[in-house]
Amino acid sequence: MSEPAATQSGQGPASRACGGGVGAAGARFASLTPLLNPRSVAVLGASTDPTRIGGRPIAYMRKQGFAGRIFPVNPRREEVQGLRAYPSVADLPEVPDVAVVAVSAELAVPAVADLAAAGVKGAIVLTAGFAEVDEAGAEAQARMVATAKAAGMRMLGPNCLGLFNARIGFYPIFSSSFENGWPRPGRIGIVSQSGAYGTHLFAAARDRGLGTPLCVTTGNEGDVTIGDVIGWLAEDPETDVIAAYAEGIRESEGLLAALAAARAARKPVVMMKVGRSALGTAAAKSHTASIAGDDAVTDAVLAEFGVVRARTTEEMLDIAQLASRRIYPARNTLGVMTMSGGAGVLISDAADELGVPMPEMPADAQARLKALVSFCAPRNPVDCTAQAFNDFSLVGRFADAVAGDGGYSSILCFFSQIGGAPSMVPKLRTELNATRAKYPDRLYVLSVLAPPEVVRDYEADGFTVFEDPSRAVVAIEAMGRFGAAFAAAPDAAPPSVPVVALPAATPSEAEAKRLLAEAGIPSAPERACPTADAAVAAAASFGFPVVMKILSPDILHKSEIGGVLLDVADADGVRAGFATLLERARAAAPAARIEGVLVAKQLQGGVECILGIHRDPVFGPVAMFGLGGVFVEVLKDVVFRRCPFGEDVAERMIRSIRGAPLLLGARGRQPADIKALARMLARLSVFAHQAGAAVQAVDLNPVFAMPEGEGAYAADAVIEIGGT
Amino acid sequence: MSEPAATQSGQGPASRACGGGVGAAGARFASLTPLLNPRSVAVLGASTDPTRIGGRPIAYMRKQGFAGRIFPVNPRREEVQGLRAYPSVADLPEVPDVAVVAVSAELAVPAVADLAAAGVKGAIVLTAGFAEVDEAGAEAQARMVATAKAAGMRMLGPNCLGLFNARIGFYPIFSSSFENGWPRPGRIGIVSQSGAYGTHLFAAARDRGLGTPLCVTTGNEGDVTIGDVIGWLAEDPETDVIAAYAEGIRESEGLLAALAAARAARKPVVMMKVGRSALGTAAAKSHTASIAGDDAVTDAVLAEFGVVRARTTEEMLDIAQLASRRIYPARNTLGVMTMSGGAGVLISDAADELGVPMPEMPADAQARLKALVSFCAPRNPVDCTAQAFNDFSLVGRFADAVAGDGGYSSILCFFSQIGGAPSMVPKLRTELNATRAKYPDRLYVLSVLAPPEVVRDYEADGFTVFEDPSRAVVAIEAMGRFGAAFAAAPDAAPPSVPVVALPAATPSEAEAKRLLAEAGIPSAPERACPTADAAVAAAASFGFPVVMKILSPDILHKSEIGGVLLDVADADGVRAGFATLLERARAAAPAARIEGVLVAKQLQGGVECILGIHRDPVFGPVAMFGLGGVFVEVLKDVVFRRCPFGEDVAERMIRSIRGAPLLLGARGRQPADIKALARMLARLSVFAHQAGAAVQAVDLNPVFAMPEGEGAYAADAVIEIGGT
Repeated sequence: MSEPAATQSGQGPASRACGGGVGAAGARFASLTPLLNPRSVAVLGASTDPTRIGGRPIAYMRKQGFAGRIFPVNPRREEVQGLRAYPSVADLPEVPDVAVVAVSAELAVPAVADLAAAGVKGAIVLTAGFAEVDEAGAEAQARMVATAKAAGMRMLGPNCLGLFNARIGFYPIFSSSFENGWPRPGRIGIVSQSGAYGTHLFAAARDRGLGTPLCVTTGNEGDVTIGDVIGWLAEDPETDVIAAYAEGIRESEGLLAALAAARAARKPVVMMKVGRSALGTAAAKSHTASIAGDDAVTDAVLAEFGVVRARTTEEMLDIAQLASRRIYPARNTLGVMTMSGGAGVLISDAADELGVPMPEMPADAQARLKALVSFCAPRNPVDCTAQAFNDFSLVGRFADAVAGDGGYSSILCFFSQIGGAPSMVPKLRTELNATRAKYPDRLYVLSVLAPPEVVRDYEADGFTVFEDPSRAVVAIEAMGRFGAAFAAAPDAAPPSVPVVALPAATPSEAEAKRLLAEAGIPSAPERACPTADAAVAAAASFGFPVVMKILSPDILHKSEIGGVLLDVADADGVRAGFATLLERARAAAPAARIEGVLVAKQLQGGVECILGIHRDPVFGPVAMFGLGGVFVEVLKDVVFRRCPFGEDVAERMIRSIRGAPLLLGARGRQPADIKALARMLARLSVFAHQAGAAVQAVDLNPVFAMPEGEGAYAADAVIEIGGT
Repeated sequence: MSEPAATQSGQGPASRACGGGVGAAGARFASLTPLLNPRSVAVLGASTDPTRIGGRPIAYMRKQGFAGRIFPVNPRREEVQGLRAYPSVADLPEVPDVAVVAVSAELAVPAVADLAAAGVKGAIVLTAGFAEVDEAGAEAQARMVATAKAAGMRMLGPNCLGLFNARIGFYPIFSSSFENGWPRPGRIGIVSQSGAYGTHLFAAARDRGLGTPLCVTTGNEGDVTIGDVIGWLAEDPETDVIAAYAEGIRESEGLLAALAAARAARKPVVMMKVGRSALGTAAAKSHTASIAGDDAVTDAVLAEFGVVRARTTEEMLDIAQLASRRIYPARNTLGVMTMSGGAGVLISDAADELGVPMPEMPADAQARLKALVSFCAPRNPVDCTAQAFNDFSLVGRFADAVAGDGGYSSILCFFSQIGGAPSMVPKLRTELNATRAKYPDRLYVLSVLAPPEVVRDYEADGFTVFEDPSRAVVAIEAMGRFGAAFAAAPDAAPPSVPVVALPAATPSEAEAKRLLAEAGIPSAPERACPTADAAVAAAASFGFPVVMKILSPDILHKSEIGGVLLDVADADGVRAGFATLLERARAAAPAARIEGVLVAKQLQGGVECILGIHRDPVFGPVAMFGLGGVFVEVLKDVVFRRCPFGEDVAERMIRSIRGAPLLLGARGRQPADIKALARMLARLSVFAHQAGAAVQAVDLNPVFAMPEGEGAYAADAVIEIGGT
């Protein structure tokens, strides 16, 4: 099982080469280069035992031929594993690019200080016993980080397994996962908060022949986060695909910049973020010092940048494997070819479920295929039938038709064991390669049962092989999502909203509505009217019908005395209603002070929605949209988005919920005023963004989305003031 | 890749041995024995070319040492592949148990007649060109089936790939899938409507080391259906697990009896039923002559019998593989052990999503583990940490604690590459086997990255290995579903409901309500009352509040003249209301004929539901339950069940929908009268069952489920009469 290492003489890394002109985020990412691609490394706590934490990195680098200089540091040894050892950092013959810290927790803090003082640019702290343990550990970690930051030194860890960069034979890592083989050459980069999971992913990738020459585990993320590493990989010219594993997102700035950089560089990011469930979240907290943020918020942020979230390790590797072909269809369509009908149905089911379109073949092409094999299935799935055994050129002609006439961006051929039968493989490769040569821009996936050596041949030809056709469809769908994200027009700018001066404490409902109105977020219009004339004027300004309510500080239960009139349809009705309400009030409560009548726009015709804001500890204000009542309470049918955003994004959010048909005119209803709702949501997002930490939450519940052209209005509003 | 065949000297098959006392269904299944386990076989259309349809079966049987006698039938040859050939069926030296028909479509019909006449008990018709092609083909197929049935001969196909029974070297099949290896010995049986998919499944199973010695493909299912084969396998003592693939269910009786037999025999059935999607269904129709029934109905039927429906081939094989351990926990709980926290979170997520409980370890056991390794995670997932490298006995002590103290029925150990490292494997096996020996009744699953030979060792020890931990959880969840189905108490009997005499044509709403009332299905009670006294009596009999409406053939829009009173709370109110309504009617429409007042029970406090019946072409009357309005229309939140059923099943249906919390008292509501709703649904199912084909559909929409103790009432009812 042992494989040759992917060691290559290290060229200058991406960020070193292009670190000059990429702005603040670029500089931030480029500062990781000494950690990931150094020319020299010191190992503090260097051990002569090649199985100990301080021994493994040296042993691995020696074995894999690290292209740079290695300086063991150990005050009790002159030599470590055949290399000259130095008593202290101060004694080193040069300032190394990076240092591995493998000393005890007590010694790690001064060691980091020594490194910072010496001008070392990167520290990889393997030592555990910090924020993951207790408060004292968290404090020690904070001191260490502060020292590093003050000196401009980047620090990986503490409590991390380390990293490897197989391209230069750099192995500052104490994993035991190389017993069954070293990393293969390739262009997939791995970053993982969990060391065990990061190396699990590398080993699983290696076992299926995928190259992951770079793997970074971030541990407690005292300084370097997965965002930093994603950003560095986004700028690394030798990386095409980024696979990330997170338990909790600890900071947003670096991650957002990194995801933007990856998208700009057309590099797919596939991420597994665990802690989806309440159960999972509990486990995440006990495992590391993570703050496992709200999973729905993370989901929204990842979707915003076109990151595909993998649900299983297998899916993560499937997607990374197919992504390595670097074909990301902006408008994905799937053409399926089989030599037997059976699996076509199965594949159609999977495509339908994931929303991958499988348009029919053009009619003329179908007729042509029917002329070739009368009992073939020419629509899509296209089945050339077992007739191909009699005339193998049929495979090529059918494949040509699928790629050429069908014009599908993704082509899945299900050949099962036929694709692995020694008597068939050479003929199959000939036919398929001819088609591929004619249409090289398509994503070709084979579902075959074949021995590993045959799979390797197909892969070398340019076909990606997944034994299971359903897994193939999942990976193909992901390529379409990457393509759509890479091709998407930039989102519209958030609307310009006046900055609203906020009170120091949570305001009353009326005050909250007034503040929101300043930001252009309308509540149901209502006005206190002392006279019938004023009531008529108010109603006319709102539009009919209106609701009229008796206005008296002494009458609390208005409806019990007939003090509420619904559906008042015109000015005469308002005038009559004014008289009626006053009369009823006098009759029922002769002593009550009567201030007049409250006239409000009647909103009953609208669809009940909820718009909200809550402050995520990592990503700041996050907007939520959902339908009211049971949709939110029982079905959790809501959508989230980081603030601020524009009306286009808001409308996409509104249309994305499961209950959206209710707003779009389901069951014979009039369509609701989606534009007004989107305007309201976008303005709310800007309001919250501008308010910053002063606003803890906003709850507009219910909001009535009126029929098209008639607006959307909050009927209740709460603004929770908090923070600083 | 070539593997030794699973040929074993054929013992008498199950159904032959136990066919005596198993009733009608048992006799039906036992009649397949000549097809699946014959002592002699004739091959009609026998070919000297071992690659042709009529040549492959003979070649395979010769190569794999068929334990019985082979009689090639070919009028133009004296000898075929070294065997003496016979000119016709009539010339055979004995009546074979079974015959393979590999002649042209025109010759197949008389050939089947010849076989029937000769007293052959089974025919395997490989020939295509029947119901899958056109109407004429369907007619020829029907003739062939009638001939076979009349003679008591079972027929597989036509248009099938054939079958194999590797235990006796019986290969009446023209698949080319044996190039990379023969079936392995084992106890998984395969049945598939699609020949290509059936052999794909066998080959995929073989490649992962699973034994599927029996594989039957049913093609057009002129006679033998997948239900028949499942039934035969359910009674076969050499089969433990049944894997089935269906495109469309063609008949219900055999399938239902087979699934009942499998459940009674504690044999898990894992089924892939494709054509889930509209797209998939279209593909299924173009592929075979299937009637792809309503997928939701199929789903309900499979769930009823504890069949686990696999979504992918990989999942199907994972489940079959784990099921081969024959450990099916009735109350599944999952204990997880790791040597690193990372994957614990991932596994917790997967378990949570699938509803597999992961209870915490007992507090004293946690304390004990903490005493062993202070920084371990002892809850569940239980993480013994990398400390195990220093003291490997920790693995055994932690595993013992999980199995013994935790008492979990399923135990998943995630050891990643450590579980495959040559230096670790022997120590790991020692520790784990010790635990397994102590607690042998648990389901043990390992998630390791290991070379195939190591995996084989673990499997031989009794551990099932899945590289991907998420896949392991899916398979473990399925074992719990099997266990629950095997252990479930029988459903309660459907209620006894009077047989209702139905009209010849679709009745009016009032008549429909009357018919349903006869069956004990209540509609909202209402009564026409000519006098105030009658109104008071009616209201008192319904219970308050009531609705009162003016009753006049001349007043259509009652509410416009104030002719509807809601919330009438007591007898005085009814009396006053009676006067008010008559007064208003006289004032508004002096000429109108007034017949009195309609008094109806007021149902507004209830939850709106829909109860329905539709007639499935395969399974007959099927009941549907859902919440009203958007829940059905937009969210498709409904549940189906074959009629008839009892109140226990009805209540489970009601509780299973996503919106169930609304009925159970969500959002501060009063809980609805679930018992009354269940009674209504169960009675409706019996009503529909007793009505048979006379009733095409019943639609009770809306039904109001009133607060607990207050009943459930249909507010509208349609009974669609049709059929014979």
